[in-house]
Amino acid sequence: MFKIRSLVTALALISSISVASAWEALPTEAPEPADNKATEAKIELGKMLYHDPRLSSTGTVSCSSCHNTMLGGEDNRPNSMGVNGQTGGRSAPTVWNAAFNAVQFWDGRAASLEDQAAGPVTNPIEMGMKSWDDVVARLESIEGYQKAFDAAFGSVLISKDNATKAIAAYERTLITPNSPYDKYVSGDSSALTAQQVRGMEKMAELGCTGCHIGPAFNGPGMFQKFPINDNAFFAAKYNFKKDQGRAEVTKKQEDAHLWKVPTLRNIALTAPYFHNGSVKTLDEAVKVMAKLQLDKTLTKEEIADIVAFLNGLTGEFPQQKMPVLPGTPGSTFN
Amino acid sequence: MFKIRSLVTALALISSISVASAWEALPTEAPEPADNKATEAKIELGKMLYHDPRLSSTGTVSCSSCHNTMLGGEDNRPNSMGVNGQTGGRSAPTVWNAAFNAVQFWDGRAASLEDQAAGPVTNPIEMGMKSWDDVVARLESIEGYQKAFDAAFGSVLISKDNATKAIAAYERTLITPNSPYDKYVSGDSSALTAQQVRGMEKMAELGCTGCHIGPAFNGPGMFQKFPINDNAFFAAKYNFKKDQGRAEVTKKQEDAHLWKVPTLRNIALTAPYFHNGSVKTLDEAVKVMAKLQLDKTLTKEEIADIVAFLNGLTGEFPQQKMPVLPGTPGSTFN
Repeated sequence: MFKIRSLVTALALISSISVASAWEALPTEAPEPADNKATEAKIELGKMLYHDPRLSSTGTVSCSSCHNTMLGGEDNRPNSMGVNGQTGGRSAPTVWNAAFNAVQFWDGRAASLEDQAAGPVTNPIEMGMKSWDDVVARLESIEGYQKAFDAAFGSVLISKDNATKAIAAYERTLITPNSPYDKYVSGDSSALTAQQVRGMEKMAELGCTGCHIGPAFNGPGMFQKFPINDNAFFAAKYNFKKDQGRAEVTKKQEDAHLWKVPTLRNIALTAPYFHNGSVKTLDEAVKVMAKLQLDKTLTKEEIADIVAFLNGLTGEFPQQKMPVLPGTPGSTFN
Repeated sequence: MFKIRSLVTALALISSISVASAWEALPTEAPEPADNKATEAKIELGKMLYHDPRLSSTGTVSCSSCHNTMLGGEDNRPNSMGVNGQTGGRSAPTVWNAAFNAVQFWDGRAASLEDQAAGPVTNPIEMGMKSWDDVVARLESIEGYQKAFDAAFGSVLISKDNATKAIAAYERTLITPNSPYDKYVSGDSSALTAQQVRGMEKMAELGCTGCHIGPAFNGPGMFQKFPINDNAFFAAKYNFKKDQGRAEVTKKQEDAHLWKVPTLRNIALTAPYFHNGSVKTLDEAVKVMAKLQLDKTLTKEEIADIVAFLNGLTGEFPQQKMPVLPGTPGSTFN
């Protein structure tokens, strides 16, 4: 796993990257693990599970409640609301193009979409199920799921492993290609405005693309310290350092305030910003990032240019059919 | 509005109905009011609004959260969970075929789907918006909604009236035709099993169809007292009389425990049952209804036959496309 632990390393990396070659269009297919090849039946099952609130203790919260596939892949809240109105300290990352993250969660504690999918279901403040055994028992009580698992996995029984594989296979279809930026780097020079091109070049010049690299602008697999620079004003206003980030998982002091580099794809649709959702607008997020990560104070015009470019990272959202979730004729678990 | 206030009247009605002619298939189109003719643009806007959690104070609860269009049109909970984990005292009725109810809500306090759609949005324990003015202001801040309202209503501004008209127009498309029962009454004698036909005949014989009449089995516009008969065992177990029903709206003692006759369409998918969601299974619901409304004690076989028939009222759910909800680039209201 690629880790950057200091600004010095980050800057060294920037200088080694050819800026021109760093601009890549989004692939239309995501890489998939050898042990979870997608099939139509698996994707369809995953879509059902992803949208089924019965995977939560109260029957009210599905994956899509916080990572909304009808919106920008999250909930536009500072932090999500799980079962019984509970909230946590972090802002839901978008599910769109999450397939291009080498690690998942803000602290990168899941190595795959499959691993990630297992977490929220049994998190007491998210979906609140007591155990995956309970989830499996509930799914087994729904005849339609028996059939859907059978279609997706053959004779293998309903299990946590297969449920998370199906969800991950579905999530790998959640790709938003053909943003103005993608069209631009694929040769359509009219796809971005002059202002957007200025913003794009400014991002490279400032060093934003030192971390936000790759087709999803997420420096795949890269961790980065945030904030790098101390700033009393922003510290008081946004309280970024309350959360220890990756150190909360590894318990190592050297991982304090390390975070997965998040994608910039569709960032215009995922306000509010940062791991704690404390920054309400994209303008302010750009200003904060430049100051805290690069020690640069941007002009209003520079911020406007960069924001214009970031708006050009909003892609095309695929038309999806709503799943028809299988019922439990004549009874319910509630 | 048609009201039945006593068992005597109800029985008089039953005897006046020709049982054979009472069996009607579900129409494939719902009646619409003269001032809200459906158009594609209006239905599409209504579908967006229906599925948009930003119509709630927390941004977490949409119409579909409690009246789930991916399930049986409700949430399979005794009572729904609104913003901040709050719950009320009544069970969410299904949105499927709600277009065939002459009145809406358990107590019939809304005369139309349009009127109904306005209610939950500003109910403090449901969607929790302070006012429709706030809803309109929020919608006006979303450029995509400006365009969608324009497409649906021409030059008329975003308003409560137009938002609820669009939602109602969408809801009128939520029809589930071609149940085994519909096929049977349309001439396919093999569409119901012998047991289901026994159950169907038993329902007429017992008098269930005195109230559950019409194509949606909801005695359109009919109110009925529930429970009619006192029963200490069921009273203690299910506490049906705690809620005064229609009298909570009209404040008239004569309306105590009067309820809109609910549809039986897709009833197998809408457990738990009754206005307070206190009865977990359809078997028990049939037993309770026979005892409390008709003073009949059914045998296990009779219950099984009727439940088999009720399972034959599950229709075909139309394939729907997920709406792509318009974003608020670079900012959010949260």
